[in-house]
Amino acid sequence: MKYERNFYQIKKNDEIFNLLIKEKSSVGYYKLPFQDISKIKEYSKTIKQKNIYVIGIGGSSLGSKAIYTFLNSTNAFTKKLLFLDTIDPLKINQLLSLSNEKNAHYVVISKSGNTIEPLSILQYLSSFRVVNESNCTIVTGKNTRLFDYARNKKINTFIIDDDIGGRFSVFSPAGLIPLSIIGVNIDSLLDGCIEVHNSFFNKEYYYDHIINKARFLVENKSRFSNNIIFSYSSVFQDFNKWYVQIWAESLGKKNTNGTRQGLTPIALLGPDDQHSFLQLIVDGVRDKTVTFFKIKNLKDSSFIPKNSEFKFFEPDFLQGKNFNELINLQADATYESIMQEKDIPCDIITISSVDEKCIGMLMYRFQLLVSCVGAFLQINTYDQPGVELGKKLLKAKLGKIND
Amino acid sequence: MKYERNFYQIKKNDEIFNLLIKEKSSVGYYKLPFQDISKIKEYSKTIKQKNIYVIGIGGSSLGSKAIYTFLNSTNAFTKKLLFLDTIDPLKINQLLSLSNEKNAHYVVISKSGNTIEPLSILQYLSSFRVVNESNCTIVTGKNTRLFDYARNKKINTFIIDDDIGGRFSVFSPAGLIPLSIIGVNIDSLLDGCIEVHNSFFNKEYYYDHIINKARFLVENKSRFSNNIIFSYSSVFQDFNKWYVQIWAESLGKKNTNGTRQGLTPIALLGPDDQHSFLQLIVDGVRDKTVTFFKIKNLKDSSFIPKNSEFKFFEPDFLQGKNFNELINLQADATYESIMQEKDIPCDIITISSVDEKCIGMLMYRFQLLVSCVGAFLQINTYDQPGVELGKKLLKAKLGKIND
Repeated sequence: MKYERNFYQIKKNDEIFNLLIKEKSSVGYYKLPFQDISKIKEYSKTIKQKNIYVIGIGGSSLGSKAIYTFLNSTNAFTKKLLFLDTIDPLKINQLLSLSNEKNAHYVVISKSGNTIEPLSILQYLSSFRVVNESNCTIVTGKNTRLFDYARNKKINTFIIDDDIGGRFSVFSPAGLIPLSIIGVNIDSLLDGCIEVHNSFFNKEYYYDHIINKARFLVENKSRFSNNIIFSYSSVFQDFNKWYVQIWAESLGKKNTNGTRQGLTPIALLGPDDQHSFLQLIVDGVRDKTVTFFKIKNLKDSSFIPKNSEFKFFEPDFLQGKNFNELINLQADATYESIMQEKDIPCDIITISSVDEKCIGMLMYRFQLLVSCVGAFLQINTYDQPGVELGKKLLKAKLGKIND
Repeated sequence: MKYERNFYQIKKNDEIFNLLIKEKSSVGYYKLPFQDISKIKEYSKTIKQKNIYVIGIGGSSLGSKAIYTFLNSTNAFTKKLLFLDTIDPLKINQLLSLSNEKNAHYVVISKSGNTIEPLSILQYLSSFRVVNESNCTIVTGKNTRLFDYARNKKINTFIIDDDIGGRFSVFSPAGLIPLSIIGVNIDSLLDGCIEVHNSFFNKEYYYDHIINKARFLVENKSRFSNNIIFSYSSVFQDFNKWYVQIWAESLGKKNTNGTRQGLTPIALLGPDDQHSFLQLIVDGVRDKTVTFFKIKNLKDSSFIPKNSEFKFFEPDFLQGKNFNELINLQADATYESIMQEKDIPCDIITISSVDEKCIGMLMYRFQLLVSCVGAFLQINTYDQPGVELGKKLLKAKLGKIND
């Protein structure tokens, strides 16, 4: 008896787990926590300028920006990262005005070595500032045009391996070079990754969390097509953007059967977005999952003292508290109010402290989650074929104008 | 013969139009373009401080912030707006450090007069800075606790009328007071509103645009449940956030039949989000509409000159252009690449220049669009019942802690 079929089923957890183990030989990000970073650390120490401009867009800047914003408020870095991550002329000129030439160092990042935005900024910059081996570092793929440019100008260059996609490159030199230059402890960062990596691949704590969540999201993808993260602290502001990219660009794909897949990422900040998006979560169509983030211990000396002037306000119970208490109570209250709705899937991740290890753990955890969801969806998580047409059309337009 | 029914149909355009005309007697925002603003302008001139802190959250700050960010890059305002629009301790302290006491003026905005975030900031602030009639203005509803506080301290107060909801209050004193203080031409702002208002209610140009778009969105709400705006210029950065609020909080409701409604707003910035979200639009599930925004004439002196160092790069055709040309070409290329997909509904709005009248027109147009969509959905566009439980839980928690 012959049995044939043309449909695909959601695979078993163990099949996905084995798929990820297989991916390790072709997908580079898995191995990044174990790389040798001695050269990066050594080189970073030689950079003397205080204002480090990161010239890169998308995967070349979102990761390091997420980590920088997370750490910057509570760590006294002696250097600053400034992100030239757009070609908006208003922003570029505003950012460049923040440092004189002497104190500026430029880290140009483009894996393809041909990304239109950072290259146009580099050309613009070169028209009125000196850019050479004394104030520039280049991070790119092997043998790209940017690599040739760097060699030609004797600018120090670090390589992003071929098997590492832009949005999975935060723990490659693309993220580590700028972070290490300003004094981020990149050993601790990778320690955090290793802890999650080993726990997952040894089928310990993180295995269950990650694979079961991925399975739930895929089994319910038609019902809950929007995945919200609701972050209660401004330290998560750029982590939110990193999440949107890795989620949207990795999971928005056609699968092996040619069927369109894609879970839509939405990133909110609390308490601000309680006054904006929350109403839609509670009373709108039930097509959303929500993941809350909060920080357990955030340094906060902003005490609200007792003051009789305010005794007639209803929230006089604010007095004697600090803002961090208040923000965490708001996170809990919103979480509980959503829990009471019963059919809004939600979970809450509490970060124990604002340091390198914790953000390393969090981001590696999300990278593994994306890999698992992609494997369950039976898509290629690591390419981005959908953006090519726009690039082609742009080049045609640029060519035309030059005629 | 008796005919009864228990289903609701999408109404005719004229029914919706008549509904909006009826709303004019109970919904305050419609009349705001025609208000007398002489007192606001007169008062604004008396404020001498240079750094104007807006203490408000959600609808009390998103509107003025959208307009300020839109205008600020190309207008030489002599004063600055600083938004204390969160209770994040890190942000609050960072923002307060930007001005000394002498140059700071505080505009406290809360329609209910009892919003926990601005009131906790006001209390915190009062513990180490003088806040009185010489450096504070209050904008609130009639006879609120904040109104009493202001009267008690003889602080100048402006009233938000009862029939104006927070997210529709940008053209009330909530938005006009801070904007007028820093020198925004609020006459032109309201002129823009009037132009759109009259065109719509006289069934001219904007009537067709707005009502047909609203009808399309509602007729296809199940298929296209996500409504993206894709803004090509950082001047739209905070307009994006204003849009998310007015869309999510107005339209995420149960309708007259108790059925959950809600279109999900997603706000993107180009070209940045070409490297993030675009892949999901193109290859993911076709559940999204896209509206592009671009600026026709943006002052831009950031010319990319010819430079032989870069001749071996593929995008050497960048040379001889400026960034504004490039950003608009990117908008066009992305728009066209999405148009080629055929089943992604999209449109493009080109703003002729970065001034008060244009942003007034744009925001009033979106308010009318929200009103139309809400009317088609047969919901109450102007309340927000879904956020009350969270507030109640928070107050309970605050009470508990005090025990």
